[in-house]
Amino acid sequence: MNMTIPAGADAARAIEVLTRLRDQLGAAAVLIGADVPERNRNDWSTQPPTNPLAVVRPVDAAGVSAALRACREASLPVVPQGGLTGLCGGARPEDGWVALSLERLVGVEEIDPDSATMTVRAGTPLEAVQRAATDAGLYFALDLGSRGSCAIGGNLSTNAGGNRVIRYGMARELVLGLEWVLPDGTIVTSLNKMMKNNAGYDLKQLFIGSEGTLGVITRIVLKLHPQPGCTMSALCALPDYPSVVRLLNASRRGLGPLLSAFEVMWPDYWEVVTQRVGVRPPVAGAHGFYVLVEAQGTDEAVDGPRFAAWLEQFADGGGLADAALAQSVADTQSFWALRDACSEFFQVLGPHVSYDVALAVRDMDAFAAQCKAALLAQIPGCESVYYGHIGDGNVHLVAWVPGLSIEEQPKKRMDEVIYGTVRDFKGSISAEHGIGTAKKPYLSYARSPEEIALMRTLKQALDPQNLLNPGKVI
Amino acid sequence: MNMTIPAGADAARAIEVLTRLRDQLGAAAVLIGADVPERNRNDWSTQPPTNPLAVVRPVDAAGVSAALRACREASLPVVPQGGLTGLCGGARPEDGWVALSLERLVGVEEIDPDSATMTVRAGTPLEAVQRAATDAGLYFALDLGSRGSCAIGGNLSTNAGGNRVIRYGMARELVLGLEWVLPDGTIVTSLNKMMKNNAGYDLKQLFIGSEGTLGVITRIVLKLHPQPGCTMSALCALPDYPSVVRLLNASRRGLGPLLSAFEVMWPDYWEVVTQRVGVRPPVAGAHGFYVLVEAQGTDEAVDGPRFAAWLEQFADGGGLADAALAQSVADTQSFWALRDACSEFFQVLGPHVSYDVALAVRDMDAFAAQCKAALLAQIPGCESVYYGHIGDGNVHLVAWVPGLSIEEQPKKRMDEVIYGTVRDFKGSISAEHGIGTAKKPYLSYARSPEEIALMRTLKQALDPQNLLNPGKVI
Repeated sequence: MNMTIPAGADAARAIEVLTRLRDQLGAAAVLIGADVPERNRNDWSTQPPTNPLAVVRPVDAAGVSAALRACREASLPVVPQGGLTGLCGGARPEDGWVALSLERLVGVEEIDPDSATMTVRAGTPLEAVQRAATDAGLYFALDLGSRGSCAIGGNLSTNAGGNRVIRYGMARELVLGLEWVLPDGTIVTSLNKMMKNNAGYDLKQLFIGSEGTLGVITRIVLKLHPQPGCTMSALCALPDYPSVVRLLNASRRGLGPLLSAFEVMWPDYWEVVTQRVGVRPPVAGAHGFYVLVEAQGTDEAVDGPRFAAWLEQFADGGGLADAALAQSVADTQSFWALRDACSEFFQVLGPHVSYDVALAVRDMDAFAAQCKAALLAQIPGCESVYYGHIGDGNVHLVAWVPGLSIEEQPKKRMDEVIYGTVRDFKGSISAEHGIGTAKKPYLSYARSPEEIALMRTLKQALDPQNLLNPGKVI
Repeated sequence: MNMTIPAGADAARAIEVLTRLRDQLGAAAVLIGADVPERNRNDWSTQPPTNPLAVVRPVDAAGVSAALRACREASLPVVPQGGLTGLCGGARPEDGWVALSLERLVGVEEIDPDSATMTVRAGTPLEAVQRAATDAGLYFALDLGSRGSCAIGGNLSTNAGGNRVIRYGMARELVLGLEWVLPDGTIVTSLNKMMKNNAGYDLKQLFIGSEGTLGVITRIVLKLHPQPGCTMSALCALPDYPSVVRLLNASRRGLGPLLSAFEVMWPDYWEVVTQRVGVRPPVAGAHGFYVLVEAQGTDEAVDGPRFAAWLEQFADGGGLADAALAQSVADTQSFWALRDACSEFFQVLGPHVSYDVALAVRDMDAFAAQCKAALLAQIPGCESVYYGHIGDGNVHLVAWVPGLSIEEQPKKRMDEVIYGTVRDFKGSISAEHGIGTAKKPYLSYARSPEEIALMRTLKQALDPQNLLNPGKVI
């Protein structure tokens, strides 16, 4: 067998423990060498696929524990894998590692309508979680583009965000209980269903958002919400950024907790989606900014007129150049098509690099202007467009040099310009995508030496042999 | 000077470092021995006051760091203190310890209306935080009875809850950034203002709710909300617990995110507050349960009628024995007077013991019945009453044997019966009050050996000398 064995591990010992693990968990649970499926060799971070030593696919926490103990015995590095949709390399194995895939640890265990909770296994796809909630007359609020492929465990290990954070919070805020396995194989079961539980440290918080470097999440108690009774939306055109901020503040005040999305599109983004992707613009003419405002209400008859009256009142105060109010679900979908068109950028822009950064609301336009100018000045021909969930402090941007292949794109220089500008504004180099390996060289742009040292202290305390997803994040 | 020096410390060395610290931070910052004010010798946990060696009162994080380094040098245990309103002994010094009080580390540093954040120093009283938010046209959602005395840093170190958790979450969910000082004196400044920031581990989560055992919180970036435009409320009488759960689910569905409180009173509680405290009941007759439902809207003209229509619709479906709909702010206040009357229990019930536990919503009434019966069976004459924020899974209860002084109350046996019943229902021994020393013997009733071992691993990693609030929580 042609296999790569990582430094510090011994080939014979590795095969011995993996064979023993296969006897224990079954043939379908342990695939070695050339039998490792293509999907487990990479994630969506556009790096080349690798040659893991094996993939282990347990069906429960006991199997995850057995896998971690076995790999520890043979000093084999382990990378946890969910839906493999991460963009930063967090779930990508290195050559010779063991991929610990949660793909068979799936299914909804319980929905408790009175506590408004769902207990679910970590490998379950997000879309299946959403559907199970809906089927029970409830609503799971996390939503993102890769819903059909990503796993709920991966959503938590990266603390996923998405479109409705402004109303429901990040993935972290949708978790009440967790079960996870520590690097030494200890299973910690803390499947709390209560909104309030202050009995000692809230341990689960450490395992949410740590990208599988401290433990492997196996089961989750999710917080469910009532199904929204109706959705209202408007596509607003505004002359300048101060007007956008005024609209944001007016949305918060006037729509209160009904406000469910506030998506801003800069004119460069708007031009690409309306002219090159070809989405029909619901407002005419060229404007300084375009904003999709969405609210979720409980009663169409009450909340529909309220939303319309709120928008009219804002318009009366000036600062709104134009606006289209959705009259139907189809209208709302057509507004979202403008925002979702970024998924078609590859077709219309060709190879490009996507970024996900966070900034204080007041700094966003200055950031966009400074970043765009710096990219152009330092990378001849470099174009960039800006859009994002600005109510959450989150801007996405896409940068590219036309005519270059993805390998030829000057990604490293782009990284330096963009993350350097983020640092100037005291922003974050990752709003919702995590760090993985892709953003690791820039962690110090967003975190202080004291913060990074403390992350290392925690990693060392929980994984002293540094075998669980080593080299990721820190 | 008559001073107690803790085991492992040396008196001369202790005085030397404290004197040096006084030279460094000023005479008002370090009070030694008999100069320690009465307030710093205890908290609200009804234990006797103690004799700390000194109190240190820094005005900034650098002063907190200097204090921690000095105490470490002399092996002196340190207890962080905020408003000292904790009920579990978390802020109570032992004899010979140094009290590190945040009482002079106060004031609002900044309010950013566009990011909807406030940066505030940890010793600032909660009420001052609320007022500063209101003065800026915004709203800080955390609220609890001791608002005038408790400090925001203490609210975070205990992850305080309060009345509106069902809408706004616990204190944890109202924090975006944090600055804290580690046991070794390292200042970690992470004053993030963004709702989304996934650049590495979310370290602040570990210091929220750990009751000052892992670090000392010095500054906080709080998340603010829009001011509610109007408040609607109703006091509902229901025949049985299934009807209460139906009302809860109908509130979530019909009021959506406007639902801001769902307070349940069992008949034993109702009898005490209406007959012994003497609060006027807004509904007549005796019923199975009483529920205060509150919603916060944005527009009285829209949300007032919506609330009334929602209640009427529920009543039409049956299961509502009686209801009073608030017609004015005064009405809402009079409904809350029923719930707040528990603060007068000392006057009407005499000495009693208060408990704060959490359970799954569906188990609460069974818990109350079983707990009440077990108390009576095992402690002759023991009375108990039940009330709480049941939408959050939180029940409060008060137990007492009439005629006994507070010292004579059989607290230990009550603890065992009540926490034992909580364990039977897989609930939590602390919903919002923390563990401190008072609940520490029962931590294993609510947390598994694996969870407690992991808490110890973290404590050991961050405070290897075990000098920061030692013996608290774990």
